[in-house]
Formats: sequence, C-alpha cells, structure tokens
Amino acid sequence: MLDTDLLWLEHLRFDPQGLIPAIAQDYRDNTVLMLAWMNREAILATLSTGEVHYWSRSRQQLWHKGATSGHIQKVKEIFYDCDADAVLLKVEQIGGSACHTGARSCFYRQVPLPHWKLPSDS
Amino acid sequence: MLDTDLLWLEHLRFDPQGLIPAIAQDYRDNTVLMLAWMNREAILATLSTGEVHYWSRSRQQLWHKGATSGHIQKVKEIFYDCDADAVLLKVEQIGGSACHTGARSCFYRQVPLPHWKLPSDS
Repeated sequence: MLDTDLLWLEHLRFDPQGLIPAIAQDYRDNTVLMLAWMNREAILATLSTGEVHYWSRSRQQLWHKGATSGHIQKVKEIFYDCDADAVLLKVEQIGGSACHTGARSCFYRQVPLPHWKLPSDS
Repeated sequence: MLDTDLLWLEHLRFDPQGLIPAIAQDYRDNTVLMLAWMNREAILATLSTGEVHYWSRSRQQLWHKGATSGHIQKVKEIFYDCDADAVLLKVEQIGGSACHTGARSCFYRQVPLPHWKLPSDS
C-alpha cells in the first residue's frame, strides 16, 4: 500500500480521546450490524489485515473483532462522511452474527412509536 | 403516547455530554444516510413530531433536520443496540438528500484499500 493511500486518514476528525464512531454494515443487503469505535491504530490494523479492528473503550485496547468467536468482519469498502467525523465499513460478517448476544445485528431492540397524526392519515 | 412507552429511554446510556450517536438509514433500501447525535430532548422531539431532531454539537442546540432545507426525515422505525449506547433511525428522507452537500448520503467519500492476499485470491 502506498503512503499516498493513507492521506485520507489525516483528514479524519477524531474526538478528544482519539476516537471516531464506525458503523459496520453488511455489504450484501446493507443491514446495519453494529456501531463501535476506532482510533488511528485500529484503522491501520484494519487496513493492513483486511479484517475489522475496533478500539474497545471498556477494555481500553485494540479489539480484533471476532478473534475469539471467529465472527470476524472482512472489509469490502470503507467510506467516511462529509465532515470526516464518522466512518462506514461495508463488511462480510463471518459466522452470521455481529452481536455478542448471537443476534445478527446489535440493533435488535425496537422502540414503541406513537401514532403521529400525519396529513396522509386523515 | 403512554408514559410506559418511554421506559426504553431510561435504559439508554448517554455519554458524559448527554449525547448518543444516531445512525439514519433509508427505510426502503437500507442506505446509511448520516450519523449525528441526539440527546434526551432531541429524542423526545423526534417522538412527539415523527420527524427526526438531532442535537447540533457545533451550534449546541436542538436541530430539526430539514427545517430550513425542507429535507426532513420522517421516522419509520427506531432501534437501539445491545449495550444501549447507539440508536438506529429508519427514515423516509424527504427531498432525496440527507447531506448538506446535496449528496444522498453523507458517506460519499470512499477510501482506497490495499489488495489483501486472501486465501480465496490464490
């Protein structure tokens, strides 16, 4: 990999803890699998291996996603947003589930919504 | 809306600034449109109106997404994740674009990736 290919990394706006939120999305059907955090080290480890590494805020260490469970995430595409303070990872989720609960996505809890009185309801 | 329908809000784990990251996703094709931040006030405003409100960290005020541009986001479904520190909003993006640049999604910048030597390549 050429050094010039890492120039985008200099544009990222990390927070005061050196972290940036990263969304992992299934590259096939666009399901959002999880949101976790990366620092520069995690991004470099992800780029060098092709497997997603996050920064574990609870353990304060580099987290090779799936290293224990086997449920690794293979990188297909990476994007960052207009103000360069969030990352989107399109991944192949090995083992089917991204969540430690065994759910496919960590976003498995749905919120009850009120019935809004929209014009189209009337 | 019954008060019991707001119990989930008590489970959310806001950061020290009272914020939680929120992913907005197109409810039709699952495109990730943007990542922004909500506080309790923004969530309540979203629930009461059916239109997404964020907390603007730069302006330090409630942000009714699309109030100026007309590109509002109508809420279809809301989820939160396993450790209750991120929110996923499935929305109908009015006007076609979520990003202030006019792009449909804020994640329009793709990162160059190295060619990993995966077993399947050999």
